[in-house]
Amino acid sequence: MAEETTRGSVERKRVVIIGAGFAGIHAAFHLAKLPLDISLIDRRNHHTFQPLLYQVALAMLSPADIAQPIRSMLSDYPNIEVLMDEVVAFHVDEQRVELKTGAQLEYDYLIVATGSTHSYFGHDEWAKLAPGLKTIEDATEIRRRVLLAFELAERKMQETGKHPQLNFVIIGGGPTGVELAGAISDIAKLYMMKNFRHIDPSRAQVLILEGSPHILGMYPEDLQAKAGQQLNALGVTLRTNAHVSDVQPGYVMVGDERIDAVVTLWAAGVQASPLGKLLGFETDRRGSVFVDEHLNPPGHPEIFICGDLAHVEQDGKQIPGVAQPAMQMGTYAAKRIARLVASELGSDGTGKNQPFRYFDKGDMATIGRKAAVAKIEWPFKGHWSGFPAWMTWLVVHIFFLIGFRNRLSVFRQWAWTYLTFKDSARLITGSQELPGWDNGEEQATPVAAGQLDLNSPKT
Amino acid sequence: MAEETTRGSVERKRVVIIGAGFAGIHAAFHLAKLPLDISLIDRRNHHTFQPLLYQVALAMLSPADIAQPIRSMLSDYPNIEVLMDEVVAFHVDEQRVELKTGAQLEYDYLIVATGSTHSYFGHDEWAKLAPGLKTIEDATEIRRRVLLAFELAERKMQETGKHPQLNFVIIGGGPTGVELAGAISDIAKLYMMKNFRHIDPSRAQVLILEGSPHILGMYPEDLQAKAGQQLNALGVTLRTNAHVSDVQPGYVMVGDERIDAVVTLWAAGVQASPLGKLLGFETDRRGSVFVDEHLNPPGHPEIFICGDLAHVEQDGKQIPGVAQPAMQMGTYAAKRIARLVASELGSDGTGKNQPFRYFDKGDMATIGRKAAVAKIEWPFKGHWSGFPAWMTWLVVHIFFLIGFRNRLSVFRQWAWTYLTFKDSARLITGSQELPGWDNGEEQATPVAAGQLDLNSPKT
Repeated sequence: MAEETTRGSVERKRVVIIGAGFAGIHAAFHLAKLPLDISLIDRRNHHTFQPLLYQVALAMLSPADIAQPIRSMLSDYPNIEVLMDEVVAFHVDEQRVELKTGAQLEYDYLIVATGSTHSYFGHDEWAKLAPGLKTIEDATEIRRRVLLAFELAERKMQETGKHPQLNFVIIGGGPTGVELAGAISDIAKLYMMKNFRHIDPSRAQVLILEGSPHILGMYPEDLQAKAGQQLNALGVTLRTNAHVSDVQPGYVMVGDERIDAVVTLWAAGVQASPLGKLLGFETDRRGSVFVDEHLNPPGHPEIFICGDLAHVEQDGKQIPGVAQPAMQMGTYAAKRIARLVASELGSDGTGKNQPFRYFDKGDMATIGRKAAVAKIEWPFKGHWSGFPAWMTWLVVHIFFLIGFRNRLSVFRQWAWTYLTFKDSARLITGSQELPGWDNGEEQATPVAAGQLDLNSPKT
Repeated sequence: MAEETTRGSVERKRVVIIGAGFAGIHAAFHLAKLPLDISLIDRRNHHTFQPLLYQVALAMLSPADIAQPIRSMLSDYPNIEVLMDEVVAFHVDEQRVELKTGAQLEYDYLIVATGSTHSYFGHDEWAKLAPGLKTIEDATEIRRRVLLAFELAERKMQETGKHPQLNFVIIGGGPTGVELAGAISDIAKLYMMKNFRHIDPSRAQVLILEGSPHILGMYPEDLQAKAGQQLNALGVTLRTNAHVSDVQPGYVMVGDERIDAVVTLWAAGVQASPLGKLLGFETDRRGSVFVDEHLNPPGHPEIFICGDLAHVEQDGKQIPGVAQPAMQMGTYAAKRIARLVASELGSDGTGKNQPFRYFDKGDMATIGRKAAVAKIEWPFKGHWSGFPAWMTWLVVHIFFLIGFRNRLSVFRQWAWTYLTFKDSARLITGSQELPGWDNGEEQATPVAAGQLDLNSPKT
């Protein structure tokens, strides 16, 4: 227990932040200028700008465009130490966390913001067959599969004159599912246009399987309808009330119906990080911790649960697990810690203090390269769709990217891709196997030969 | 045998190019505008600008900065088809190659340019312990190991007050070894300066083990000496005549001497791609094919071997396996094919034609961020070192990068990193294990605790 005191003067309060997502990193930035000793723990060495992960997955951006080393982001603050490690136990009564490597970190204040991960509804064996999109590794794995499908089809076509239909099946019609679908459709129809000689990439089909009656459940009905129209315009097929009963190499089952899939992606369920349960407080079904209006679990005014890991209700609805509330919760926790340290509040958290309130500026999801839906709440209320919504999305996402360099880089890449239809992040790295491809050939519907003449390109 | 004729009119000559490295891609560009049907086969979907791979390995550039999808590069030429596949057999008498997937490709002319790979001198078990640097995957694996070593040391130091000495051992003192050593030293001493709170990254040690009496064997003696001085100035230790007898997790043996290593990198031997032997012609010890002055193997004027895979001697010396001769060979083969097709030469290759001659413009290797050695042969002769050589290296490498977009991007990244000491490609992806780390702790020399006060940062 003495090891961890290789640190600053003892009078200074110690804050431990677990997780360097939106909540954790915003808390760290706000606490950095105060006379506190801060430890930020994350399993990864980088912060990921998750709203743009799907663009890495579809080869429009490179990993380094949307991920930054946590150390670099915080290098100007000597009172913050970053540890690439994992928490294995919380000892909340002793105000101490235990790390995987055995280190013990004592704290005066603790912020836990480890977000969420995929939920396969008890079918963890589906994870390898239908990757989800939470990390840079997930994104490059999806990129590998989608690009490889076109390569393997070209190879088969060249060799045998037919290839399995390029069906991309996305399970889940939330924002991630919709964004992935739009982007795959764009890749197939626009960016790959002149790249293949044997197959016609634009004949690829994208299918969204949504279990509920509506896609984009958190959006109002008019925008759900607009999104549906825009997806249809891109050629994306939409099936609602479609409950996936099985995921196998090369196909997906919806009830008794078999749906061929060269690539299956998972955008359906999320569950809170396992640290929620590890904390020992009451959690909801997803594993998020019930917190009070100060983001504290019951009886622990020194512990703050932020972001996806917190179950917070406001006006009768649960606050959604997206970037904005996470940033706001991280900032709120940091400000409250500052007031506790400055003794503006009682040590038990009593005293005049605003409860946390989510200030909802709205939500947006893109649909391909020219359309989006936006439910705008601030600075005015409105439902936008199509190109104006897409432009708004673009500006907002560049603005919120952390770091001037990344903003420049992403803007330049988008402008380049938009104007030239070329993108250069289309690298396939890693294995060249696709689950279900070998048996997919006989099982999937073959596409007719379509004898192509190299002298008259399809374009 | 009929399957492969899903292509253009039969009168057009068919060229098959194996390998999309410098030789293959230059041949393809030169042949693209002629009335030929061209198939370009590569195992990967991207061309890699190998001279800058070490910058990806040391997190200065992103993979997409130096790698481009082959399809995109050639998308404007409908007479070129790109196949992501592997050759499993050559049937040179029938003028046909067999691909892994079973496809058969007939050709009138064949260019084989599959380059080289690492040689572990019969110790293939060292490959996992000491990765070499030939592909994007190699580069991100080296990046992972080097960055992870600092993270694990910080973690150990925070926990126990000591950590294994950060020894980076590079086996091989050729250009790649020297460039890796300089870049690791830069990372440790400059770019990571303000990033750690417990360890002092600048105390990392970089060691080059070179088996021969001199580093940079292909350079003249004065530049070898200059390179040695510049490496010493960066704190890199150099051991020549050091024959590595074993590579183990956490250490390397030189004779009976044990040298601790948190990360070991391989920059020693290369061998030609196995396709050299598969062709069936006589090869040298490295596996490169002996070719005549037209780059043809004996008796096959329709086959061209280019780049690293060709054993070509000029003025009594073998042409080195670097980018320049590969580009020139690819271009030469393409031009000769054009003349054969145009019947300017006899079908057996006889007739007036220049033999291949390597036009050596010189060689360069960087040593960190400010120095280099350059043996310049054209447009004037000279031996340069230090900053002027480094500036020359910079200009030449940006110029030779294929694609305007990549040039811009690399230039911007370098300028940014050079001016700000920040780089943002420092992502650790994949596993968080390092071979030999767990036992390295007790075995390697621990660094003294050096109780650090977070209030007075080291900078």
